[in-house]
Amino acid sequence: MNEPLKNIRVVLVDPIYPGNVGAVCRCMANCGITDLAIAERTREIDTEDCRKRAMHAGNIFDQRREFPSLAEAVADCGLVAGTSARQGLYRAHSRTPREWAPFFVERAHDNRIALVFGTEDKGLAKEHLTLCTQIIQIPSHPDYSSLNLSHAVMVCCYELFVAAGTFVPSEEPSVEASSDLRERMFSLWEQTLLDIGFMKDDKAGHMMFGLRRILSRGLLTEADIKILMGIARQSQWNALELRKRKEGDVPPPPGA
Amino acid sequence: MNEPLKNIRVVLVDPIYPGNVGAVCRCMANCGITDLAIAERTREIDTEDCRKRAMHAGNIFDQRREFPSLAEAVADCGLVAGTSARQGLYRAHSRTPREWAPFFVERAHDNRIALVFGTEDKGLAKEHLTLCTQIIQIPSHPDYSSLNLSHAVMVCCYELFVAAGTFVPSEEPSVEASSDLRERMFSLWEQTLLDIGFMKDDKAGHMMFGLRRILSRGLLTEADIKILMGIARQSQWNALELRKRKEGDVPPPPGA
Repeated sequence: MNEPLKNIRVVLVDPIYPGNVGAVCRCMANCGITDLAIAERTREIDTEDCRKRAMHAGNIFDQRREFPSLAEAVADCGLVAGTSARQGLYRAHSRTPREWAPFFVERAHDNRIALVFGTEDKGLAKEHLTLCTQIIQIPSHPDYSSLNLSHAVMVCCYELFVAAGTFVPSEEPSVEASSDLRERMFSLWEQTLLDIGFMKDDKAGHMMFGLRRILSRGLLTEADIKILMGIARQSQWNALELRKRKEGDVPPPPGA
Repeated sequence: MNEPLKNIRVVLVDPIYPGNVGAVCRCMANCGITDLAIAERTREIDTEDCRKRAMHAGNIFDQRREFPSLAEAVADCGLVAGTSARQGLYRAHSRTPREWAPFFVERAHDNRIALVFGTEDKGLAKEHLTLCTQIIQIPSHPDYSSLNLSHAVMVCCYELFVAAGTFVPSEEPSVEASSDLRERMFSLWEQTLLDIGFMKDDKAGHMMFGLRRILSRGLLTEADIKILMGIARQSQWNALELRKRKEGDVPPPPGA
């Protein structure tokens, strides 16, 4: 599973904060991406903060590779995608992660792809961007467009993970109710609302129309119908029992 | 701009790590969401680490509101969307952030919406989930499905920001070249490749077909054509100058 994601490498250029590197490892693991490279490192990153933020993704950090230059870190990659928040000559050709993701995933079946992220304070320099075949611009609000490094990695990896299509969402455990089953439920409710004295025959049509509207706003599953029919039956039972007692069919309990 | 986003509230239930709270503020600012509430707080969160991670989004932290219970934190909200990584009875009805986002944004034009995130180690408890009208499940890899709190907030806010459609991506500064302009470029290149002796007349068709294939893999803008024609003209000029000298039309420079 997720074979294309195994061909995707996250490359960090000289990260400043070890905590961010740890958080990047966790993001990658959350998205099934495991190949981490560090280029041009000038600072210590193997710290307690890094390990703490990586949580259960410490293996990604342990298996990282380090390279003196970005050119070496991406040497064996086909596509090299650099992230950039700023506008400019080289950045005008950028696309969003969502626009690139299907293309990258398709290419990653047979080719290694690098996602390159710059130093926290400066981003990627011109000499890094010239190595890139694609530029990624992450959508963000103009009032504060700069994302934290690990959040930028999260958005890119998340888009690739979603585009890879391997995530299987939770399944509804009960199937959608058929019209036939829904109608039986509405018939039971109609009779119940008459039996409990909530409405009279002449208002039943209008009231049932309202109830149908309320209960039809979302999908109803067979399990939902079972709950709604159970409530109606129990309510009806109480009303019918009461009527029997009032009619003297059942003698009142002793002392009543 | 972004009016629906102003109606979206991020609610954190008893966060453990102040750094995460700061990072959440930054995520929110990156996505144009500013309303932060903290519910059931039992730990100090206004720390240096929180302020540092919030970066330029400290105002969101300063303007946060705190509530003793989740019920109070979401009392004025219509939709209340809880996030949950785990499966279970209440979670089977969950949808991904991408599935919910257009619905939430549309509703947020006229209604306040809460996005609720649980404590880092335990997530939302059953009593929190019962307050929720929607459950969000963030896609993640089964080997490590638990996201850091601020990364979960990032993904949800990012999806809402994208769905709000207010992000304007960088524009290509030059328009796509027309077929007519492309053909003039190819004609010039053909003549140039003949003039510089790269190909002979009898191979020109085949070679130009290859060059057309290479240069047609992506869109070519008018600016791209200008560069390509410039290269061809300059190359051609050199070849023609050389030919003139060889033919003796231009005397060799003195001393040559």
